[in-house]
Amino acid sequence: MAQKLTLKKIAQELKVSISTVSKALRDSHEISVETRTKIQEYAKQYNFKPNNIALSLKNQKTKKIGVIIPEIVHHFFATVISGVERVANEKGYQVIICLSGESFDKEVVNMDMLANGSIDGFVMSLSKETMERQDFHHLREVTNQGMPIVMFDRVADDIACDKIIIDDVEAANKATDFLLRKNRRNLGLISTPDYVNVGRLRTQGFKEALMKRGYEIDESAILKVEDIENCGDKIKDFLMTGNYDGLLAVNELFAVTASKALQGMGRKVPDDVAIVAFTDGMLSKYASPTLTTIGQKGEEMGGLAAAKLIQKLESDHQEDETYETVIVKTSLIERESTP
Amino acid sequence: MAQKLTLKKIAQELKVSISTVSKALRDSHEISVETRTKIQEYAKQYNFKPNNIALSLKNQKTKKIGVIIPEIVHHFFATVISGVERVANEKGYQVIICLSGESFDKEVVNMDMLANGSIDGFVMSLSKETMERQDFHHLREVTNQGMPIVMFDRVADDIACDKIIIDDVEAANKATDFLLRKNRRNLGLISTPDYVNVGRLRTQGFKEALMKRGYEIDESAILKVEDIENCGDKIKDFLMTGNYDGLLAVNELFAVTASKALQGMGRKVPDDVAIVAFTDGMLSKYASPTLTTIGQKGEEMGGLAAAKLIQKLESDHQEDETYETVIVKTSLIERESTP
Repeated sequence: MAQKLTLKKIAQELKVSISTVSKALRDSHEISVETRTKIQEYAKQYNFKPNNIALSLKNQKTKKIGVIIPEIVHHFFATVISGVERVANEKGYQVIICLSGESFDKEVVNMDMLANGSIDGFVMSLSKETMERQDFHHLREVTNQGMPIVMFDRVADDIACDKIIIDDVEAANKATDFLLRKNRRNLGLISTPDYVNVGRLRTQGFKEALMKRGYEIDESAILKVEDIENCGDKIKDFLMTGNYDGLLAVNELFAVTASKALQGMGRKVPDDVAIVAFTDGMLSKYASPTLTTIGQKGEEMGGLAAAKLIQKLESDHQEDETYETVIVKTSLIERESTP
Repeated sequence: MAQKLTLKKIAQELKVSISTVSKALRDSHEISVETRTKIQEYAKQYNFKPNNIALSLKNQKTKKIGVIIPEIVHHFFATVISGVERVANEKGYQVIICLSGESFDKEVVNMDMLANGSIDGFVMSLSKETMERQDFHHLREVTNQGMPIVMFDRVADDIACDKIIIDDVEAANKATDFLLRKNRRNLGLISTPDYVNVGRLRTQGFKEALMKRGYEIDESAILKVEDIENCGDKIKDFLMTGNYDGLLAVNELFAVTASKALQGMGRKVPDDVAIVAFTDGMLSKYASPTLTTIGQKGEEMGGLAAAKLIQKLESDHQEDETYETVIVKTSLIERESTP
C-alpha cells in the first residue's frame, strides 16, 4: 500500500527542517530560490499538495472545528476544551483535537493536516517553541487562504484573527495589590521565561503594582522556571534565599510546589507566607491549604472562542475582515492560602 | 455553500435516534424493515454514505491514529494520551483526539467521522453511557470492515480486538489487603456504578480480599457515586454514617474529597482513617496528606496501545485475526495517607 508523503518525510528526505519545507511549498521568500526549487520539484514529482484549503473551501463545509493546544495535562486547557465542546455541539459542530506538545514542528504538521479539508476553522493556543521563535508562517498561510482562526491565551499579536485573552497584566496587578493590602511587603514571583507571553505579562503586572505603590523592583525576587515538570528544586532554592512573606505564582502547580516546600521548611501558609496563584484548577481546590487564585475562566474562554469561530464560519460576509480581541474578566477567588 | 449531511441531521430530520440511523445504514436487523427502508432511502436521496472505511482502505494509508476517550479532565486519560503521542510520533504517525463526553451518541458520531478516511485505526476507551447500554454496534462495524481498534481501560469484552487493561480485581485486592495488614478492620469503599467496568471489578477485588480473610461483606460500606463532579455531599454522608478506619477509593478525586471531609469532621488521616486511592495523578502527589495510590500506568498503557495498533497496521498478515489482551502490572505507591 502506498504511504502518503508528508511534510516530515520530505524534510527528512531532503535534509531540511519541516518549517523550510512548509515555507518553500508556499513559495516563501525566506527560503533561497535553490532550496525552494528543489523542494517544489520533489513535491511535484510525488504529486504532493500541502494544505489544500482552497480546494476544501470550494467544496462543502465539514461542520468540524480543529483545536490545537500545547498539552492537556494542564487543567486550564482541559477546561477550555470543555467550553469549545459545549458550544460547538450546541451548534451542530464536531471537535477534533491535536496536541503540539509545545513543539513548533508538531504545530505546523498538525495545522497542515487539519487544514487539508478535515475542518472549517481553528481554535488554538500556541506552543512555547512557536512563541520563542516568533515564527507564525503556518498561521498566516491558513488565514490568507480564508480559513478562520480564533486564538486564545497564548496568542500572536501580529496575526490578524479573533483572539480571546484575559488581561494578564491587570490580573497580576490585582493579585499583587491584594497581597500588599494584606500587609505583605517582601513579595516573590514565580513565573515562566519571558517568551511565554502570559508569563511576561503577569511579570509586568506584578512589577507595575509594586512600582505604583513606590516599592523598588528586586529582580532576584522573580524566579523564571523553564521546566515545569521538574520545578521542585528550583523553587525550593528560590524560597531558601529570599525571606518572602507573600508569593505570586503564574500557575497553580508552581504555587502548590512552593506551598509544600515552605511547609517542609517549617514556615506556615498563610501566617508566615501568603500565596496567590493563577489557574483555578483541581490543585487549587484540593491542596492544603487551598489556594487563593485568579480564576482564568477556561470554560468561558473556550465557549467564546467556539462561538466566535462559528459566527465567522456562518457569516454571509466572509470578506468583511474585522477582528476582535475579547478580554475575559478574571476574578480573585479567596481561599486558605491568604489571610 | 452546501452543508454536509450527518448522522445527527438524518436522526433529527426523521425523528429517530442517532444509533437507529447508524444501524439502519448498516442494514442491521435490530431495526424494523420499515424504518430501515425509510432511513436508507433518505440517505440515498442525499447521496449520504456513512463510514466509507472500505473506500479509504483501498486507497493510501493516512498515517494517523484516532483516539476516542470519555474526557480529558481526568489525569489518567491525559497520561494515556501522552503515551499514545510518544509512540505514535516515534513511528511517524499523527494523533487525532475526539471526546465522547461520556455520551453514546457522541462516541458513535465521532467514530463515524474519523473512520471516514481520516485515520488508519483507533485507540479508545468507552463512554459510560456505552457501557451502560452495552451497545457496541459502532465498534463492530469498524472492525468488520478491517479497521483495527485497540481498547484500553474501559473495554467491551465481546468485541474482538486488542485490549490494554490493568487487572482491576487484583489491584483492588492488593490495596484492600494492604489496609488489612495495617490493622484496619472497618473498611469502606467509594466506587462507581457497576456498569462502569473498572468500578465493578475494583468492587469485586475489594470484596474478594475481605472474604479471603474471613470478613463479612457489608453492602452499606460500599458507596457507588454516579455524579463525579458533585460527589462531595454523598461522600460526606457516607463517612458520617459508617465509622471507617480504612478507605479504598476507585479514583483520586473520591479519595481527596473523602480526606478533606474526614479532616473537616476532626478525624485524622492516616491515624484515624487510612486511605488508598486509584489514579496516581496530581491530586495524589499534592494533596495533604499525599495519597497512597495504585499507579495505573496511563503513559505505559497509551504507549502499548499505540504500539499494538501500529504493529497491526503495518503487519503483512492483516487477515491473521489473533487478538491479545495485555494486562499492565500495577504497583502500590505508599505515601502519607496510610501509616
